[in-house]
Amino acid sequence: MAHQTLAQRFSATFVEQIVNGTYRIGDRLPSLRECMRLHGYSKNTVINAYELLTTQGYVEARHGQGFFVKTGTAKSAEPEDPPPYARAMDTIWLMRQQFVREPGHSPLGEGFPPVEWLMDMRLDRFTRQIMRTGVTTLFRYGNRLGNPGLRQHLVQKLAGYTIAATPRQIVTTHGANHALDLIIRRFVAPGDCVLVENPGYYPLFGKLQLQGARMLAVPRLADGPDIDVLRHVLKTQRPKLFFIQSVGHNPTASDISPSKAHQLVQIAEEHQLILVDDDALADYKPTSAIRVSALDQLKRTLYVGSFSKSISAALRVGFIAGNKEVIDELGDLKMLLHTSSSEFCERAVDVILGEGHFLRHLMRLQERARTATAQSLQLLDDIGAEVFARPEQSLYLWARFPSFDDARELTRKLLPKGFMIAPGHIFSPVQSDVNPWTRLNVAYLNNPLLKAALSR
Amino acid sequence: MAHQTLAQRFSATFVEQIVNGTYRIGDRLPSLRECMRLHGYSKNTVINAYELLTTQGYVEARHGQGFFVKTGTAKSAEPEDPPPYARAMDTIWLMRQQFVREPGHSPLGEGFPPVEWLMDMRLDRFTRQIMRTGVTTLFRYGNRLGNPGLRQHLVQKLAGYTIAATPRQIVTTHGANHALDLIIRRFVAPGDCVLVENPGYYPLFGKLQLQGARMLAVPRLADGPDIDVLRHVLKTQRPKLFFIQSVGHNPTASDISPSKAHQLVQIAEEHQLILVDDDALADYKPTSAIRVSALDQLKRTLYVGSFSKSISAALRVGFIAGNKEVIDELGDLKMLLHTSSSEFCERAVDVILGEGHFLRHLMRLQERARTATAQSLQLLDDIGAEVFARPEQSLYLWARFPSFDDARELTRKLLPKGFMIAPGHIFSPVQSDVNPWTRLNVAYLNNPLLKAALSR
Repeated sequence: MAHQTLAQRFSATFVEQIVNGTYRIGDRLPSLRECMRLHGYSKNTVINAYELLTTQGYVEARHGQGFFVKTGTAKSAEPEDPPPYARAMDTIWLMRQQFVREPGHSPLGEGFPPVEWLMDMRLDRFTRQIMRTGVTTLFRYGNRLGNPGLRQHLVQKLAGYTIAATPRQIVTTHGANHALDLIIRRFVAPGDCVLVENPGYYPLFGKLQLQGARMLAVPRLADGPDIDVLRHVLKTQRPKLFFIQSVGHNPTASDISPSKAHQLVQIAEEHQLILVDDDALADYKPTSAIRVSALDQLKRTLYVGSFSKSISAALRVGFIAGNKEVIDELGDLKMLLHTSSSEFCERAVDVILGEGHFLRHLMRLQERARTATAQSLQLLDDIGAEVFARPEQSLYLWARFPSFDDARELTRKLLPKGFMIAPGHIFSPVQSDVNPWTRLNVAYLNNPLLKAALSR
Repeated sequence: MAHQTLAQRFSATFVEQIVNGTYRIGDRLPSLRECMRLHGYSKNTVINAYELLTTQGYVEARHGQGFFVKTGTAKSAEPEDPPPYARAMDTIWLMRQQFVREPGHSPLGEGFPPVEWLMDMRLDRFTRQIMRTGVTTLFRYGNRLGNPGLRQHLVQKLAGYTIAATPRQIVTTHGANHALDLIIRRFVAPGDCVLVENPGYYPLFGKLQLQGARMLAVPRLADGPDIDVLRHVLKTQRPKLFFIQSVGHNPTASDISPSKAHQLVQIAEEHQLILVDDDALADYKPTSAIRVSALDQLKRTLYVGSFSKSISAALRVGFIAGNKEVIDELGDLKMLLHTSSSEFCERAVDVILGEGHFLRHLMRLQERARTATAQSLQLLDDIGAEVFARPEQSLYLWARFPSFDDARELTRKLLPKGFMIAPGHIFSPVQSDVNPWTRLNVAYLNNPLLKAALSR
């Protein structure tokens, strides 16, 4: 894979999509122009890739009409050969890389805020209150669904997003990743197909690989998932779940438009799809941001929340909200797998959410995100970068630099200058994908040295 | 299943073992006497069950020699039909029952100590120290393998059991159940067979069912697993893992003998078996208790530890120790599934383990266990109960009462009198098993009302 040309790697992404059934016999591949826009390749690269696909017998050119898929989804019927752990190996490797912080390097690709943004919440200040709310239960396993006080606070939090829920519609988890894992283990059996956004949250892809799921990739556009591709995939495939992010999509920082949210909920109803709406960046966004879970009122959506990026990732507290029956089952599964989550940490979050100080903390956090986002957009414009989505406040932005067809090259260029970035290919569910985009943390972008390095 | 006779239910356990391959064509079933001793049935029940198996064509009687398996492991080759969640449904139901605490009822069947036994460790006393050991890391994700200070303390703890390990041989988890789950997801693929003890820790069985594993049951005797059955199973099956408990086995409260531990490690080497040694009750036992992990020095064993029963179950802190390569992989898997465990809770345990007060707490806990165990054994002897194993100190005992062939009857009898017990069948990996034994928590046994109720 190391010495492939760009065209070879790009054609491989189509082979994978043909094989996994995203494209079927007779389907038209995207036009040259669409490819150039969507993936950022030069015209030559796209033409070479399509010629390669023709030579390999996967597609045929029809004069004046474009390129069409010739061969079927032969491989998709074969059983999954590699053992679960091997399937997820690539993602594991990527995550390990992401957790390495080179001393002295700016963690520009990180999806986490600087600790300074969180530290004004003094965690130690609340210990007495945590203890006071019931000493004896501090030693026992917690409630199957999680601390009742915290779930009551979460009901209020969801009401702020115009999502109506009762405490019985909420189950707490060890963070958003644990939440995604519980959902996968409840609904995904080996060989099942599920829909994911491309690009998307790569630790999710690893969990799906581990479970032996087949991922069907739907392109993420600046206003939400590509509805045309989604409808197209649903013509032939019967996925049970679609993992999306309405707000502050990771990595593109894009928010879903009201119209797309509406269409998505309609499609979910038609096709009995469960929408898993991961809202890990909620606390960085205005409460008015539109969410599919608010349109659908948790009928077919599972809302995933987290406090890792707004209180502390060291507490491991997140949650799932959904309809009562599904939450009941997810609570059972959580009990079966982990007995209970941490009563201690959940009480800490419960106490913090009840503090007036927390609202001030959130306002300050959002103010910081707003300022850093504006400065980052300015810097990226100044150096001629293309920005995928332009939110008012975010923790990261998704950008590309005209002279780099593959962000891995940019990574190699910036590393010796002291900057670590997150190249786009790691956010792709298609392993062999090449990607010119990169995720940049706005907290670290406003750096003159970086501007100099990027301006070449 | 509700209106089956004892003999029908007992015969069904053999059908399941014939189908899952524990017994193969030509194998001799246990003698009447063995059955009566092992399962506690009357002679008539066993004879009726064997006649039923003969009628159904599973076994044949050979005059003067006993009963032999006639039919093969036909069903074991079929694919697993039910989806993962359905497979684990029975265990989920049992766990939910176990978590219900009827107000005013004595939780005699609980596997957890009374909170009073834990409360002398004042959790709030250590907050300042938890904070002091590094404020900024209190907001970030933790190390992939867990808090380094805690792992250093765990190295010392293991050294106390004569198990030599480095911090790189330890990965922290959200408790022992999370540890078991990580091990299952690393090593067990759907359809794989694994060895478990019968009776055994039923939340383990549920996790294995969820993963689609086939459980091969090895009887647990008072001095460890039944080595003859183990060797017999290994003649035809290739399990990768054997989940055992050397010390304070749950539910039987038995400890492995040095000779059995030695044989088990030898067999593990011969058959490339990984022994998963769940030591959740370690803090209730003398450090000198013998463990297979100490004999083998973590070459083929994975040691699972927990602080749920000696510090607090609300913190969710446990760990796995093993050889460096496997721990590395389990750390990767933990990162993939849950990003990290709770730095906050792990620091709390780290600080507590460093306190002189903790040693006094453990001594007091063991003194309580010793006293309660002695009193419980006395009471059980007084009322004519049979006790499976007679440890010096334990949290529970495994006993049966002569007049009950099925402990479910005893459960129904005791419930209106205010006592909840854990009937033996829930600890069996064979769903239809009938069991006269019951697990009794020594902390709640010393109760004159109970003595009266049990003496009929």
